[in-house]
Amino acid sequence: MSTVGNPANIFWHENPVGKAEREKLLNQHGCVVWITGLSGSGKSTLACSLGRELQSRGKLSYVLDGDNLRHGLNKNLWFSPESRTENIREVAKLFANAGLICIASLISPYRKDGDAYRALLPDKKFIGRVSFFMNMPLQLCEGRNPRGLYKLARVGKIKGFTGIDDPYEPPLSCEIEIQLKDGVVPTPNEMAGQVVSYMEDRGFLEA
Amino acid sequence: MSTVGNPANIFWHENPVGKAEREKLLNQHGCVVWITGLSGSGKSTLACSLGRELQSRGKLSYVLDGDNLRHGLNKNLWFSPESRTENIREVAKLFANAGLICIASLISPYRKDGDAYRALLPDKKFIGRVSFFMNMPLQLCEGRNPRGLYKLARVGKIKGFTGIDDPYEPPLSCEIEIQLKDGVVPTPNEMAGQVVSYMEDRGFLEA
Repeated sequence: MSTVGNPANIFWHENPVGKAEREKLLNQHGCVVWITGLSGSGKSTLACSLGRELQSRGKLSYVLDGDNLRHGLNKNLWFSPESRTENIREVAKLFANAGLICIASLISPYRKDGDAYRALLPDKKFIGRVSFFMNMPLQLCEGRNPRGLYKLARVGKIKGFTGIDDPYEPPLSCEIEIQLKDGVVPTPNEMAGQVVSYMEDRGFLEA
Repeated sequence: MSTVGNPANIFWHENPVGKAEREKLLNQHGCVVWITGLSGSGKSTLACSLGRELQSRGKLSYVLDGDNLRHGLNKNLWFSPESRTENIREVAKLFANAGLICIASLISPYRKDGDAYRALLPDKKFIGRVSFFMNMPLQLCEGRNPRGLYKLARVGKIKGFTGIDDPYEPPLSCEIEIQLKDGVVPTPNEMAGQVVSYMEDRGFLEA
Protein backbone atom coordinates (compact mmCIF):
# COMPACT_ATOMS: atom_id res chain seq x y z
CA MET A 1 0.00 0.00 0.00
CA SER A 2 1.47 3.34 -0.91
CA THR A 3 0.15 6.85 -1.33
CA VAL A 4 2.87 8.19 -3.61
CA GLY A 5 2.53 11.86 -4.51
CA ASN A 6 2.56 13.61 -1.19
CA PRO A 7 6.00 12.77 0.17
CA ALA A 8 4.91 13.85 3.62
CA ASN A 9 2.24 11.18 3.69
CA ILE A 10 3.81 8.03 2.35
CA PHE A 11 3.16 4.75 4.09
CA TRP A 12 4.52 1.65 2.50
CA HIS A 13 2.89 -1.62 3.26
CA GLU A 14 5.72 -3.37 5.03
CA ASN A 15 5.88 -7.03 4.31
CA PRO A 16 8.88 -8.43 6.11
CA VAL A 17 10.25 -11.86 5.22
CA GLY A 18 8.82 -14.34 7.71
CA LYS A 19 10.28 -17.28 9.61
CA ALA A 20 8.56 -19.82 7.33
CA GLU A 21 10.18 -18.31 4.23
CA ARG A 22 13.63 -18.37 5.77
CA GLU A 23 13.05 -21.97 6.86
CA LYS A 24 12.07 -22.88 3.30
CA LEU A 25 15.29 -21.31 2.04
CA LEU A 26 17.34 -23.26 4.57
CA ASN A 27 15.25 -26.44 4.40
CA GLN A 28 15.19 -26.77 8.18
CA HIS A 29 13.23 -25.49 11.16
CA GLY A 30 14.60 -22.74 13.35
CA CYS A 31 14.84 -23.91 16.94
CA VAL A 32 16.84 -23.70 20.11
CA VAL A 33 18.81 -26.73 21.23
CA TRP A 34 19.43 -25.99 24.85
CA ILE A 35 22.25 -27.91 26.56
CA THR A 36 22.49 -27.76 30.33
CA GLY A 37 24.91 -29.34 32.76
CA LEU A 38 27.74 -28.67 35.17
CA SER A 39 30.93 -26.96 34.11
CA GLY A 40 33.07 -29.76 32.64
CA SER A 41 30.11 -32.01 31.82
CA GLY A 42 30.81 -31.79 28.10
CA LYS A 43 28.33 -29.15 26.94
CA SER A 44 30.76 -27.32 24.63
CA THR A 45 32.04 -30.60 23.25
CA LEU A 46 28.51 -31.73 22.40
CA ALA A 47 27.74 -28.27 20.93
CA CYS A 48 30.80 -28.48 18.66
CA SER A 49 30.12 -32.03 17.45
CA LEU A 50 26.49 -31.25 16.88
CA GLY A 51 27.38 -28.14 14.87
CA ARG A 52 29.82 -30.23 12.79
CA GLU A 53 27.29 -32.98 12.16
CA LEU A 54 24.59 -30.49 11.12
CA GLN A 55 27.00 -28.61 8.84
CA SER A 56 27.96 -31.88 7.14
CA ARG A 57 24.26 -32.36 6.38
CA GLY A 58 23.97 -28.86 4.93
CA LYS A 59 22.13 -27.48 7.95
CA LEU A 60 22.86 -24.05 9.39
CA SER A 61 23.49 -23.89 13.11
CA TYR A 62 25.13 -21.44 15.46
CA VAL A 63 26.54 -22.07 18.91
CA LEU A 64 25.84 -19.60 21.69
CA ASP A 65 28.26 -20.57 24.40
CA GLY A 66 28.07 -19.03 27.86
CA ASP A 67 31.86 -18.75 28.03
CA ASN A 68 32.37 -17.15 24.64
CA LEU A 69 29.50 -14.74 25.06
CA ARG A 70 31.05 -13.26 28.14
CA HIS A 71 33.64 -11.57 25.91
CA GLY A 72 31.22 -9.88 23.53
CA LEU A 73 27.53 -9.84 24.17
CA ASN A 74 27.72 -9.85 27.92
CA LYS A 75 31.02 -8.22 28.61
CA ASN A 76 29.33 -5.32 30.34
CA LEU A 77 29.73 -5.86 34.00
CA TRP A 78 26.70 -3.79 34.83
CA PHE A 79 24.38 -6.53 33.55
CA SER A 80 23.02 -8.54 36.45
CA PRO A 81 23.32 -12.34 36.17
CA GLU A 82 19.53 -12.49 35.62
CA SER A 83 19.56 -9.99 32.77
CA ARG A 84 22.58 -11.76 31.28
CA THR A 85 20.71 -15.06 31.25
CA GLU A 86 17.61 -13.41 29.86
CA ASN A 87 19.66 -11.65 27.22
CA ILE A 88 21.17 -14.92 25.95
CA ARG A 89 17.70 -16.47 25.91
CA GLU A 90 16.32 -13.61 23.81
CA VAL A 91 19.27 -13.82 21.42
CA ALA A 92 18.69 -17.59 21.07
CA LYS A 93 15.07 -16.81 20.24
CA LEU A 94 16.13 -14.32 17.54
CA PHE A 95 18.42 -16.95 16.00
CA ALA A 96 15.61 -19.54 15.99
CA ASN A 97 13.34 -16.94 14.43
CA ALA A 98 16.00 -16.29 11.78
CA GLY A 99 15.68 -20.00 10.88
CA LEU A 100 18.88 -21.29 12.47
CA ILE A 101 19.37 -24.25 14.74
CA CYS A 102 20.68 -22.30 17.70
CA ILE A 103 22.75 -24.44 20.03
CA ALA A 104 22.73 -22.75 23.44
CA SER A 105 25.33 -24.27 25.69
CA LEU A 106 24.90 -22.87 29.18
CA ILE A 107 25.27 -24.15 32.72
CA SER A 108 21.70 -22.91 33.49
CA PRO A 109 21.87 -24.08 37.09
CA TYR A 110 18.36 -23.10 38.12
CA ARG A 111 15.21 -24.94 37.19
CA LYS A 112 13.47 -21.67 36.39
CA ASP A 113 15.98 -21.12 33.53
CA GLY A 114 14.82 -24.35 31.96
CA ASP A 115 11.20 -23.33 32.38
CA ALA A 116 11.96 -20.00 30.72
CA TYR A 117 13.47 -21.84 27.74
CA ARG A 118 10.42 -24.08 27.56
CA ALA A 119 8.17 -21.02 27.41
CA LEU A 120 10.38 -19.35 24.84
CA LEU A 121 9.08 -20.65 21.54
CA PRO A 122 5.48 -21.76 21.72
CA ASP A 123 5.58 -23.41 18.31
CA LYS A 124 3.00 -26.18 18.38
CA LYS A 125 4.03 -28.24 15.38
CA PHE A 126 7.74 -28.20 15.94
CA ILE A 127 8.87 -27.99 19.49
CA GLY A 128 10.90 -24.83 19.35
CA ARG A 129 13.50 -26.14 21.68
CA VAL A 130 15.15 -29.43 22.40
CA SER A 131 16.78 -29.67 25.78
CA PHE A 132 19.69 -31.87 26.68
CA PHE A 133 20.83 -32.57 30.15
CA MET A 134 24.47 -33.56 30.41
CA ASN A 135 23.99 -35.67 33.50
CA MET A 136 27.60 -36.26 34.50
CA PRO A 137 28.75 -36.85 38.07
CA LEU A 138 30.27 -33.84 39.79
CA GLN A 139 33.36 -35.93 40.55
CA LEU A 140 33.99 -36.47 36.84
CA CYS A 141 33.43 -32.81 35.96
CA GLU A 142 35.65 -31.70 38.79
CA GLY A 143 38.32 -34.15 37.71
CA ARG A 144 38.35 -32.53 34.28
CA ASN A 145 38.67 -29.18 36.09
CA PRO A 146 38.08 -26.96 33.03
CA ARG A 147 40.32 -23.88 33.10
CA GLY A 148 41.20 -24.77 36.69
CA LEU A 149 37.85 -23.39 37.83
CA TYR A 150 36.89 -26.16 40.25
CA LYS A 151 40.23 -25.90 42.02
CA LEU A 152 39.74 -22.16 42.46
CA ALA A 153 36.18 -22.73 43.70
CA ARG A 154 37.34 -25.38 46.21
CA VAL A 155 39.82 -22.99 47.78
CA GLY A 156 37.23 -20.20 47.83
CA LYS A 157 38.87 -18.07 45.15
CA ILE A 158 35.68 -18.24 43.07
CA LYS A 159 32.46 -17.74 44.99
CA GLY A 160 29.04 -19.10 44.01
CA PHE A 161 30.44 -21.77 41.70
CA THR A 162 27.76 -24.15 40.45
CA GLY A 163 28.11 -27.60 42.01
CA ILE A 164 30.49 -26.44 44.73
CA ASP A 165 28.97 -23.61 46.75
CA ASP A 166 25.98 -22.87 44.51
CA PRO A 167 23.32 -25.46 43.64
CA TYR A 168 22.76 -27.17 40.32
CA GLU A 169 19.13 -28.15 39.99
CA PRO A 170 18.83 -30.99 37.46
CA PRO A 171 15.95 -30.33 35.05
CA LEU A 172 12.73 -32.18 35.93
CA SER A 173 12.14 -32.99 32.29
CA CYS A 174 14.15 -32.77 29.12
CA GLU A 175 14.10 -34.33 25.68
CA ILE A 176 17.39 -36.20 26.00
CA GLU A 177 19.49 -37.00 29.03
CA ILE A 178 23.08 -37.91 28.34
CA GLN A 179 24.65 -40.17 30.94
CA LEU A 180 27.63 -42.38 31.53
CA LYS A 181 27.25 -45.86 30.04
CA ASP A 182 28.86 -48.44 32.32
CA GLY A 183 30.97 -45.65 33.73
CA VAL A 184 32.15 -44.51 30.28
CA VAL A 185 31.45 -41.14 28.72
CA PRO A 186 29.76 -41.42 25.30
CA THR A 187 31.95 -40.08 22.50
CA PRO A 188 31.06 -36.67 21.06
CA ASN A 189 30.01 -38.39 17.81
CA GLU A 190 27.69 -40.74 19.68
CA MET A 191 26.11 -37.82 21.53
CA ALA A 192 25.73 -35.69 18.41
CA GLY A 193 24.29 -38.64 16.51
CA GLN A 194 21.67 -39.13 19.19
CA VAL A 195 20.66 -35.47 18.97
CA VAL A 196 20.57 -35.41 15.17
CA SER A 197 18.42 -38.57 15.04
CA TYR A 198 16.03 -36.99 17.49
CA MET A 199 15.77 -33.84 15.38
CA GLU A 200 15.45 -35.77 12.16
CA ASP A 201 12.64 -37.95 13.50
CA ARG A 202 10.71 -34.85 14.51
CA GLY A 203 11.09 -33.08 11.18
CA PHE A 204 13.44 -30.31 12.24
CA LEU A 205 15.84 -31.00 9.41
CA GLU A 206 13.55 -30.27 6.49
CA ALA A 207 11.03 -27.56 5.69
CA MET B 1 42.67 -34.89 20.55
CA SER B 2 41.20 -37.26 23.08
CA THR B 3 42.54 -39.24 25.95
CA VAL B 4 39.80 -41.86 26.19
CA GLY B 5 40.19 -44.29 29.02
CA ASN B 6 40.31 -42.17 32.09
CA PRO B 7 36.89 -40.50 32.15
CA ALA B 8 38.16 -37.93 34.63
CA ASN B 9 40.77 -36.72 32.19
CA ILE B 10 39.09 -36.47 28.82
CA PHE B 11 39.69 -33.44 26.65
CA TRP B 12 38.19 -33.46 23.22
CA HIS B 13 39.76 -31.36 20.56
CA GLU B 14 36.96 -28.93 19.88
CA ASN B 15 36.69 -27.91 16.28
CA PRO B 16 33.72 -25.59 15.96
CA VAL B 17 32.23 -24.82 12.56
CA GLY B 18 33.70 -21.52 11.39
CA LYS B 19 32.24 -18.47 9.67
CA ALA B 20 33.79 -19.40 6.31
CA GLU B 21 32.10 -22.80 6.35
CA ARG B 22 28.70 -21.30 7.14
CA GLU B 23 29.24 -18.75 4.37
CA LYS B 24 30.02 -21.54 1.92
CA LEU B 25 26.81 -23.28 2.90
CA LEU B 26 24.82 -20.08 2.38
CA ASN B 27 26.81 -18.86 -0.62
CA GLN B 28 27.04 -15.35 0.77
CA HIS B 29 29.16 -13.31 3.14
CA GLY B 30 27.94 -12.56 6.63
CA CYS B 31 27.85 -8.82 7.23
CA VAL B 32 25.99 -6.02 8.92
CA VAL B 33 23.98 -3.60 6.82
CA TRP B 34 23.54 -0.67 9.13
CA ILE B 35 20.74 1.76 8.30
CA THR B 36 20.68 5.07 10.13
CA GLY B 37 18.31 8.03 9.90
CA LEU B 38 15.61 9.95 11.72
CA SER B 39 12.41 8.32 12.89
CA GLY B 40 10.15 8.31 9.84
CA SER B 41 13.02 8.52 7.33
CA GLY B 42 12.15 5.11 5.89
CA LYS B 43 14.65 2.83 7.62
CA SER B 44 12.19 0.01 8.33
CA THR B 45 10.75 0.28 4.83
CA LEU B 46 14.21 -0.07 3.29
CA ALA B 47 15.01 -2.93 5.68
CA CYS B 48 11.85 -4.81 4.61
CA SER B 49 12.39 -4.32 0.87
CA LEU B 50 16.01 -5.27 1.16
CA GLY B 51 15.11 -8.43 3.07
CA ARG B 52 12.53 -9.30 0.39
CA GLU B 53 14.95 -8.69 -2.47
CA LEU B 54 17.66 -10.79 -0.82
CA GLN B 55 15.21 -13.61 -0.05
CA SER B 56 14.09 -13.64 -3.71
CA ARG B 57 17.74 -14.20 -4.62
CA GLY B 58 18.06 -17.06 -2.16
CA LYS B 59 20.08 -15.04 0.34
CA LEU B 60 19.50 -15.28 4.07
CA SER B 61 19.03 -12.00 5.91
CA TYR B 62 17.56 -10.96 9.22
CA VAL B 63 16.29 -7.56 10.27
CA LEU B 64 17.18 -6.21 13.70
CA ASP B 65 14.85 -3.29 14.15
CA GLY B 66 15.23 -0.90 17.05
CA ASP B 67 11.47 -0.77 17.57
CA ASN B 68 10.88 -4.50 17.51
CA LEU B 69 13.83 -5.27 19.71
CA ARG B 70 12.46 -3.13 22.48
CA HIS B 71 9.82 -5.80 23.10
CA GLY B 72 12.17 -8.75 23.41
CA LEU B 73 15.88 -8.31 23.57
CA ASN B 74 15.86 -4.94 25.25
CA LYS B 75 12.64 -4.96 27.19
CA ASN B 76 14.47 -4.77 30.47
CA LEU B 77 14.21 -1.22 31.65
CA TRP B 78 17.33 -1.48 33.73
CA PHE B 79 19.50 -1.46 30.62
CA SER B 80 20.97 1.97 30.06
CA PRO B 81 20.55 3.44 26.53
CA GLU B 82 24.28 2.90 25.97
CA SER B 83 24.21 -0.75 26.96
CA ARG B 84 21.08 -1.23 24.83
CA THR B 85 22.85 0.17 21.77
CA GLU B 86 25.92 -1.88 22.50
CA ASN B 87 23.81 -4.98 22.99
CA ILE B 88 22.16 -4.63 19.57
CA ARG B 89 25.57 -4.05 18.01
CA GLU B 90 26.93 -7.24 19.58
CA VAL B 91 23.89 -9.21 18.44
CA ALA B 92 24.34 -7.86 14.90
CA LYS B 93 27.93 -9.05 15.07
CA LEU B 94 26.83 -12.54 16.13
CA PHE B 95 24.41 -12.69 13.18
CA ALA B 96 27.14 -11.61 10.75
CA ASN B 97 29.42 -14.22 12.28
CA ALA B 98 26.66 -16.81 11.77
CA GLY B 99 26.83 -15.96 8.04
CA LEU B 100 23.68 -13.88 7.75
CA ILE B 101 23.22 -10.50 6.15
CA CYS B 102 22.08 -8.71 9.27
CA ILE B 103 20.07 -5.60 8.50
CA ALA B 104 20.26 -3.32 11.53
CA SER B 105 17.73 -0.55 11.30
CA LEU B 106 18.36 1.92 14.08
CA ILE B 107 18.12 5.67 14.55
CA SER B 108 21.75 5.69 15.83
CA PRO B 109 21.69 9.45 16.41
CA TYR B 110 25.26 9.84 17.59
CA ARG B 111 28.31 9.77 15.39
CA LYS B 112 30.11 7.52 17.87
CA ASP B 113 27.51 4.79 17.19
CA GLY B 114 28.50 4.81 13.54
CA ASP B 115 32.16 4.63 14.49
CA ALA B 116 31.42 1.68 16.76
CA TYR B 117 29.74 -0.13 13.85
CA ARG B 118 32.72 0.62 11.64
CA ALA B 119 35.03 -0.93 14.20
CA LEU B 120 32.76 -3.93 14.63
CA LEU B 121 33.90 -6.32 11.95
CA PRO B 122 37.47 -5.74 10.90
CA ASP B 123 37.23 -8.07 7.92
CA LYS B 124 39.71 -6.84 5.35
CA LYS B 125 38.49 -8.59 2.25
CA PHE B 126 34.81 -7.98 2.64
CA ILE B 127 33.84 -4.86 4.46
CA GLY B 128 31.89 -6.33 7.30
CA ARG B 129 29.34 -3.59 7.28
CA VAL B 130 27.61 -1.43 4.75
CA SER B 131 26.14 1.75 6.14
CA PHE B 132 23.22 3.61 4.70
CA PHE B 133 22.20 7.05 5.68
CA MET B 134 18.55 7.81 5.06
CA ASN B 135 19.12 11.52 4.55
CA MET B 136 15.52 12.75 4.63
CA PRO B 137 14.51 16.24 5.74
CA LEU B 138 13.15 16.46 9.28
CA GLN B 139 10.02 18.16 7.89
CA LEU B 140 9.23 15.10 5.77
CA CYS B 141 9.86 12.66 8.62
CA GLU B 142 7.79 14.75 10.98
CA GLY B 143 4.99 14.95 8.41
CA ARG B 144 4.86 11.16 8.34
CA ASN B 145 4.72 11.27 12.15
CA PRO B 146 5.25 7.53 12.75
CA ARG B 147 3.08 6.27 15.61
CA GLY B 148 2.34 9.90 16.48
CA LEU B 149 5.77 10.21 18.06
CA TYR B 150 6.77 13.59 16.63
CA LYS B 151 3.51 15.14 17.81
CA LEU B 152 4.13 13.83 21.31
CA ALA B 153 7.72 15.12 21.20
CA ARG B 154 6.59 18.57 20.02
CA VAL B 155 4.25 18.97 22.96
CA GLY B 156 6.91 17.70 25.34
CA LYS B 157 5.23 14.38 26.14
CA ILE B 158 8.31 12.54 24.91
CA LYS B 159 11.61 13.95 26.08
CA GLY B 160 14.94 13.61 24.29
CA PHE B 161 13.39 12.76 20.91
CA THR B 162 15.96 12.64 18.11
CA GLY B 163 15.57 15.58 15.74
CA ILE B 164 13.34 17.56 18.10
CA ASP B 165 15.01 18.07 21.46
CA ASP B 166 17.92 15.67 20.98
CA PRO B 167 20.47 15.97 18.19
CA TYR B 168 20.86 13.77 15.15
CA GLU B 169 24.45 13.80 13.95
CA PRO B 170 24.54 12.81 10.27
CA PRO B 171 27.34 10.29 9.65
CA LEU B 172 30.53 11.82 8.27
CA SER B 173 30.97 8.92 5.87
CA CYS B 174 28.83 6.04 4.74
CA GLU B 175 28.68 3.64 1.81
CA ILE B 176 25.35 4.86 0.43
CA GLU B 177 23.37 7.98 1.18
CA ILE B 178 19.73 7.87 0.20
CA GLN B 179 18.22 11.26 -0.59
CA LEU B 180 15.19 12.85 -2.18
CA LYS B 181 15.44 13.03 -5.96
CA ASP B 182 13.85 16.28 -7.18
CA GLY B 183 11.84 16.35 -3.98
CA VAL B 184 10.57 12.80 -4.45
CA VAL B 185 11.30 9.87 -2.14
CA PRO B 186 12.84 6.91 -4.00
CA THR B 187 10.56 3.86 -3.99
CA PRO B 188 11.49 1.01 -1.63
CA ASN B 189 12.35 -1.14 -4.64
CA GLU B 190 14.68 1.52 -6.00
CA MET B 191 16.41 1.83 -2.65
CA ALA B 192 16.69 -1.93 -2.15
CA GLY B 193 17.98 -2.32 -5.72
CA GLN B 194 20.71 0.23 -5.04
CA VAL B 195 21.80 -1.64 -1.93
CA VAL B 196 21.74 -5.07 -3.58
CA SER B 197 23.79 -3.83 -6.55
CA TYR B 198 26.32 -2.40 -4.16
CA MET B 199 26.57 -5.69 -2.29
CA GLU B 200 26.70 -7.74 -5.48
CA ASP B 201 29.52 -5.62 -6.93
CA ARG B 202 31.55 -6.16 -3.81
CA GLY B 203 31.08 -9.91 -3.70
CA PHE B 204 28.86 -10.16 -0.64
CA LEU B 205 26.33 -12.32 -2.42
CA GLU B 206 28.49 -15.32 -3.19
CA ALA B 207 31.04 -17.32 -1.22
